[in-house]
Amino acid sequence: MTNSVIDDVYNNTLTAYAISAAWELGLLERLDVSDQPVDLADFAREHDLHAPSVEAIARGLAIAGIVVLGPGHAFATPGPLFADTWAKKGFFYWLTRGCGDLFRTMPQLVRNSSRTGDFVVRDYKAIGLAARDAGFSYVDPTFYKIIADRGLTYGADLGCGSGERLIKLAGRDPEFRGIGVDFAPGAVALATESVANAGLDQRISVVHGDATRMEYRPEFSQVDFVCCFMMGHDLWPREECLASLKLIGEAFPSATDLIICDTYRSDLPPTEPHPVFTLGFETAHAVMGQMIPSLGEWNEVLSEAGWQRADVVDFDLPPYTALMHLTRELPGA
Amino acid sequence: MTNSVIDDVYNNTLTAYAISAAWELGLLERLDVSDQPVDLADFAREHDLHAPSVEAIARGLAIAGIVVLGPGHAFATPGPLFADTWAKKGFFYWLTRGCGDLFRTMPQLVRNSSRTGDFVVRDYKAIGLAARDAGFSYVDPTFYKIIADRGLTYGADLGCGSGERLIKLAGRDPEFRGIGVDFAPGAVALATESVANAGLDQRISVVHGDATRMEYRPEFSQVDFVCCFMMGHDLWPREECLASLKLIGEAFPSATDLIICDTYRSDLPPTEPHPVFTLGFETAHAVMGQMIPSLGEWNEVLSEAGWQRADVVDFDLPPYTALMHLTRELPGA
Repeated sequence: MTNSVIDDVYNNTLTAYAISAAWELGLLERLDVSDQPVDLADFAREHDLHAPSVEAIARGLAIAGIVVLGPGHAFATPGPLFADTWAKKGFFYWLTRGCGDLFRTMPQLVRNSSRTGDFVVRDYKAIGLAARDAGFSYVDPTFYKIIADRGLTYGADLGCGSGERLIKLAGRDPEFRGIGVDFAPGAVALATESVANAGLDQRISVVHGDATRMEYRPEFSQVDFVCCFMMGHDLWPREECLASLKLIGEAFPSATDLIICDTYRSDLPPTEPHPVFTLGFETAHAVMGQMIPSLGEWNEVLSEAGWQRADVVDFDLPPYTALMHLTRELPGA
Repeated sequence: MTNSVIDDVYNNTLTAYAISAAWELGLLERLDVSDQPVDLADFAREHDLHAPSVEAIARGLAIAGIVVLGPGHAFATPGPLFADTWAKKGFFYWLTRGCGDLFRTMPQLVRNSSRTGDFVVRDYKAIGLAARDAGFSYVDPTFYKIIADRGLTYGADLGCGSGERLIKLAGRDPEFRGIGVDFAPGAVALATESVANAGLDQRISVVHGDATRMEYRPEFSQVDFVCCFMMGHDLWPREECLASLKLIGEAFPSATDLIICDTYRSDLPPTEPHPVFTLGFETAHAVMGQMIPSLGEWNEVLSEAGWQRADVVDFDLPPYTALMHLTRELPGA
């Protein structure tokens, strides 16, 4: 049987689905920690899974070299591509599980007649899990270092999601206080619960709010930094972003530091090799009708909004993702 | 920016989604027939599509070499992989559009606790469109030749779908008569309508029926052949298939010929190059809990059911797909 490049494109799609499934089912983790070949039938039994499906998923991994299958396809061991897959599994999960419905229905969503109301369906729980896995281990240390170096102790996290970021900061500094802001009622409820479970409700509060139209509240008065992770692009296009940044500056009158971490537009020509994520991120946002600014466009609008660039740290993973650290002099300082 | 094998797996998944979208939106066809570069903005305008999404889809094709993008990504022309993509587009459509929900939710469907009731969601309209495109041009001539060579004039099509197969046979032979049988009420309605639209309702009838428990009806008495396309595997496992074949033989007492065209199990080890479709077909059926017989298993059960093998034609596309032609001597003949 012959095999062409297009056949590989097809088979790689099955592999992508298999990576997401193997991660969600715990098979990737088992492969990562096990020092022996993983018995697939045992694994299925222990997790109450359908054994032929587990074997099919393992085959989807094996065809790309992520695992090697032993005698009779009964055993799996990590293959040459396992380590890279493990590092990037969150991006696959974002693609097929978080945005799977968006991409499946893309031909419909592209028709102007369908583009009304909430026309895009995404699985935000899966996207949250993916984002937490995909590269935050690389981003977090840079973030913590800025907070420590600048002596910041009171943060507002716009788009706080599960509240995990503020909880971690509170765990690192017993003086730290924070306010989580999110537009999604589900996130506000989840963050409130997580903060309470961590015993931090005296130090961290969670409020409902829209980052595009922030308004001052008395509890914002002492906030000394504002951060915003992986949602800054939602503030765009340019004029809307500029207006939002000005409102944020006014709503948090004592904030000297602004930290925005986001994936920016790559402007990568299709003839260049693409890293993981970029094509998926940019395609999904094109379909959603959300422009993604370039790093240059970010720099320019932040400057116009009165924030001075202190540092920009560019990450390899997630690719085309930067942590932008901005500062400002306060009038009374 | 570096790029690894896993990054290509990721990007190829976007390309697969882009192929399905470009086909459904008519962009692949425009590229196929146009002797000039396709202006993407014009194409979007003519079809009332969201232009940035069309550009993103074109980029998903370009990254794999299916199209080449001209200045400013405004124009697309067929690239080195276009011809192979055009030939295989139906398999991609089957994968991401027909079975997209199955693969997206695969991690759930693998859990035994979710495997009750109609646990698999597939888009049967998309699967029908895909199947019609994917390789039937290769299969049809072989089928027509058997009908003509054997002088067959009255066919029953089990799993007749849209009724297209019987309508085509009636178009080739003015004496031809047929009975379409399908289990899906939607298919019965569609086939009935298509037959009426073709002005063939005096020669072709459509009835509701289950191929796994066929029963004689007076109108079956003159049927001289039974055919069954792309659903024979639904009759398995073995004992159920044997029982179904015996009932089919009894329900059509004058049928001398049985023609089964189906994709069979490849038994291809993951270390071998895989053609398009095979991994998708076998993974989807594993998840659905439907065994796929090998060609050897088919031969054996057909023989035990009293059918003599006249010919087996194996196709390159769809891969691992055979047209099995069986005959039998009738007692009174």
